[in-house]
Amino acid sequence: MKQVITMKLVLGIDGGGTKTEAIALDHNGGLLLRLTGESTNPHAITFPKAMRNLGALLDALLEAPELKGLDWTTAALGLSGVSTEEEQQAVYRYLQEFQKERGVAFDVSLLHDAQIALMATLEREEGIIAISGTGSILFGLTPEGKRYRVGGWGHLLGDEGSGYDIGLRTLKTIMRHYDGIAPATGLTELVLEAYGFSSPTELKPYIYKDSVQKSDIAKFAQICIEASEKGDKTAARILLQAAGELADAAIALIGKDQWFESCDLVTTGSIFSHSSFFSRLFQEKVTAAYPKITVHSSVQSPAYGAALLALKRYREHMSL
Amino acid sequence: MKQVITMKLVLGIDGGGTKTEAIALDHNGGLLLRLTGESTNPHAITFPKAMRNLGALLDALLEAPELKGLDWTTAALGLSGVSTEEEQQAVYRYLQEFQKERGVAFDVSLLHDAQIALMATLEREEGIIAISGTGSILFGLTPEGKRYRVGGWGHLLGDEGSGYDIGLRTLKTIMRHYDGIAPATGLTELVLEAYGFSSPTELKPYIYKDSVQKSDIAKFAQICIEASEKGDKTAARILLQAAGELADAAIALIGKDQWFESCDLVTTGSIFSHSSFFSRLFQEKVTAAYPKITVHSSVQSPAYGAALLALKRYREHMSL
Repeated sequence: MKQVITMKLVLGIDGGGTKTEAIALDHNGGLLLRLTGESTNPHAITFPKAMRNLGALLDALLEAPELKGLDWTTAALGLSGVSTEEEQQAVYRYLQEFQKERGVAFDVSLLHDAQIALMATLEREEGIIAISGTGSILFGLTPEGKRYRVGGWGHLLGDEGSGYDIGLRTLKTIMRHYDGIAPATGLTELVLEAYGFSSPTELKPYIYKDSVQKSDIAKFAQICIEASEKGDKTAARILLQAAGELADAAIALIGKDQWFESCDLVTTGSIFSHSSFFSRLFQEKVTAAYPKITVHSSVQSPAYGAALLALKRYREHMSL
Repeated sequence: MKQVITMKLVLGIDGGGTKTEAIALDHNGGLLLRLTGESTNPHAITFPKAMRNLGALLDALLEAPELKGLDWTTAALGLSGVSTEEEQQAVYRYLQEFQKERGVAFDVSLLHDAQIALMATLEREEGIIAISGTGSILFGLTPEGKRYRVGGWGHLLGDEGSGYDIGLRTLKTIMRHYDGIAPATGLTELVLEAYGFSSPTELKPYIYKDSVQKSDIAKFAQICIEASEKGDKTAARILLQAAGELADAAIALIGKDQWFESCDLVTTGSIFSHSSFFSRLFQEKVTAAYPKITVHSSVQSPAYGAALLALKRYREHMSL
């Protein structure tokens, strides 16, 4: 007698404000497929649009030749902007409806952004995660399941050490140099070159256009990083201040639970990944205050962490 | 034979982003009427709406019993947001049309914001004016007609030392205290009280509402001023930094023309008028760098300065 074993599939999804990444693993943890779709953050777009984008990504996975005939078991989703009980219930309802319509059935877990990001690098759900992308935030999760956060108040109330923060400091520095308040900096030339402007005054009509988003301002952080690598002292000072303020936030978080004092801290987001100088400054300040902390750069994407957690859930379910 | 002398009237108008003030003087400089209308800043509202508001204010003046039967001679207008040649021509065209429709005739001068503000306090068009309201800017005018400006790049590119800047620092400080990054400050309690919030976290849904304007953020500066007057050290530090940055801008402006080194400097705007502490910090830093500068607080409103300039134009015209 011949036994047919259908390969089992688990799915990890990392939903963000600009894109959503999905990773499918087989039940041995082997990578089957990685796909990217549109934003699924209901606050960046709208709730119905976020769910349509999530559905489109799931449909693409269901139709992918690489996944044909496999048995879907578990999906773990870390969706930024889905945090309240109400938002989570609405996502669960959407996914139930989706499964009914498509004639598929799999378990769904909604996870915290921090959980999937920690899992991706540490293969563990506990520790501290420092995120600096367009915005910035710190999360801490303890083995007892306690959750803490510092920062993440957005561009008006906080986000110190974020790309937006560094971008804005870069722009202000250029204008202060133009006005003769601050000394000359290579930032000016780099920005004029990158944007095809002939004078810093052209930043004004550009920056106040309705179409200019927070992420457009955060793009100037990349120019600051570039200038610091070319030895520009003003750019280096901006990164020093920003990294210092993010480290202050991390230090405040560590102070909230004794378990954090000797835990692992993962750094992630475009600022950490693009600037080793920023990463080093952040790490130095944090470990000067708490020498037993181990700082890691994120290696795998959060979607991979979500997939690992889906696998963990699947195995827990199997062993019941 | 009896001679009938018709009283001549001159008009000064100060147009801003939230309101427009008009002052009518007789040809001896006696105050006849002061009226306030809506915004006439084409960038705060739209150009047609700004002109409708200007027309409505002029109509109110034409119909005012106090001004009935008087001979309109000269109007001087300082309209914020009207600065390019194109914008000025459009205002002149609108006022020509207005005069034709209403059957009145008077000379029109469009003036610089700084000119009318300097005139109001110094009764002279030369000197430096430091403005700190919702935004901040510095203008310098020399007797040879040279014009300089520093700052005024708006809330994203500059506006250091403005109400917006102080308001934002106040909000960020409150969140940093909430997160345990910054020490406790009386600012938190004052803001919670004033806005009826039970936790600083309620600032987040408030501040990111579409209806919240730059001026709403600038309102938190008033709370910072209040806290500093009650002895709060964090609030005092915010004002020290903001006043210091505005003084740096003034110092940079003074450095641009030797004539400024011993000129008069007028401070105006809600931050200067509401905080003598801020005013003193600003003055101390500027005069430490340039001891021959004389700093004055604005006394009369810019509209009065505009009216004085209208009177000056009228008298020059009479003596031709």
